Amino acid sequence: MSLSCVLIGAGNLATHLGEVLKQKGFNILQVYSRTQNSAKNLAERLNATFTTSPQSIIHSCDFFIIALKDEAVKQVLPSVEFNNKLILHCSGSLPLSVLNGFSENTGVLYPLQTFSKGRNIDFAEIPVFIESDSEKNLSLINSIAARISNKIIVADSEKRKQIHISAVFACNFVNHLYTISESILKENGLDFDILKPLIKETTNKVMKLSPGEAQTGPAVRFDESVINNHLGLLAGKPELAELYKLISESIYKFHQSIL
Amino acid sequence: MSLSCVLIGAGNLATHLGEVLKQKGFNILQVYSRTQNSAKNLAERLNATFTTSPQSIIHSCDFFIIALKDEAVKQVLPSVEFNNKLILHCSGSLPLSVLNGFSENTGVLYPLQTFSKGRNIDFAEIPVFIESDSEKNLSLINSIAARISNKIIVADSEKRKQIHISAVFACNFVNHLYTISESILKENGLDFDILKPLIKETTNKVMKLSPGEAQTGPAVRFDESVINNHLGLLAGKPELAELYKLISESIYKFHQSIL
Repeated sequence: MSLSCVLIGAGNLATHLGEVLKQKGFNILQVYSRTQNSAKNLAERLNATFTTSPQSIIHSCDFFIIALKDEAVKQVLPSVEFNNKLILHCSGSLPLSVLNGFSENTGVLYPLQTFSKGRNIDFAEIPVFIESDSEKNLSLINSIAARISNKIIVADSEKRKQIHISAVFACNFVNHLYTISESILKENGLDFDILKPLIKETTNKVMKLSPGEAQTGPAVRFDESVINNHLGLLAGKPELAELYKLISESIYKFHQSIL
Repeated sequence: MSLSCVLIGAGNLATHLGEVLKQKGFNILQVYSRTQNSAKNLAERLNATFTTSPQSIIHSCDFFIIALKDEAVKQVLPSVEFNNKLILHCSGSLPLSVLNGFSENTGVLYPLQTFSKGRNIDFAEIPVFIESDSEKNLSLINSIAARISNKIIVADSEKRKQIHISAVFACNFVNHLYTISESILKENGLDFDILKPLIKETTNKVMKLSPGEAQTGPAVRFDESVINNHLGLLAGKPELAELYKLISESIYKFHQSIL
């Protein structure tokens, strides 16, 4: 059975999802994006038609996938005729209920990964969180998800939000700490490359150990001389000093509480 | 030429350093640790003698390596007779001058990595930062470092402190964000494993891209609805909410400033 789908969105997530769906035998009929170039480019790669007008989105498909930023999801929904077909959104933070009233068949398919242009991602190992309004639709969504991933987990909207927050800490916030490190090194004429073995090992460690057990550094042992020394060095950057202090305190408190 | 060395310290760093030095042909004569078991165990692995008394540390060696926590370095120094042999400390945050008055031959050998028991580390790719009081000693330290690493960088104490701070952000603080993610997931009956593909990809990305360019997520686009939603979910955990807010603001400000 080859299911057909309309893809609403042409950003990083839509691109990666569209490509894996096509590769797994789904028929992508149409791509929508506000931006003509994005819609056209992705449609060409997926052998689909494209539109930049929500009113021109076709509904001769088995399901819709909305892969847009949260605000854009809310904006586009009222302009599309879904004809009661299954609508799936892919957001970690939007509840299922955001789709209420736009179709009687609704669900969520949330792949927990960071998607960037030009990076190949092995979809099979990405955890995909699914939710639906009915058992029948959940079973359909499960069969769709099972074609692209080996790790499908049913999670309601509240649980998905918590998963999304945990991902913000482990991905977006972690990346920002790398950015801070890079800016400190740059100021001192050093290249970010010198941190790469450390970053790799820090990550490899938590693949084997719980991060709580893996914690090292001055904060966990509350080494005040190092901490105060570092705060002194950051004195000209009050925001970084504040961040340093707050994270150090958080590390110390966390590890005191589990002793 | 086979140089001989006394190792002061028997923790994770001392263990990894001792093993790579022995493997590269150095002769480890003695291991010192306050803790008898640690001293004995490491000495056995390195085919060395051991002592738990600083006064019994021998000085019939070519150089000393002090691989202790910063406070312990300062405590042990006055009790040891170094007989003017080369003393090296391995700390990111202690200045070279901490060794002043204990020998006329002093230096630093700081390997930028996180060392844990039971994990194999490829020393060859670890950046090693060196410093010394004289050109002659720097050249000797360089020849020692070159036996264990392919990446040797001369850096003075001020620069090394900045490198150490950047490492605290990229390793210790990053690991703590993983710990926070793990605790949020646990509370929701979910396993930390579901974050592993995301963590791997976040790390792999910065091996290719500058982290500043790789930043994604609600904070960089200042998606207030997601941010406020998350802050609401963290309302029962004021410390995490504060951390979330501060990091989000920092991401936003950083990316505004480079636009």
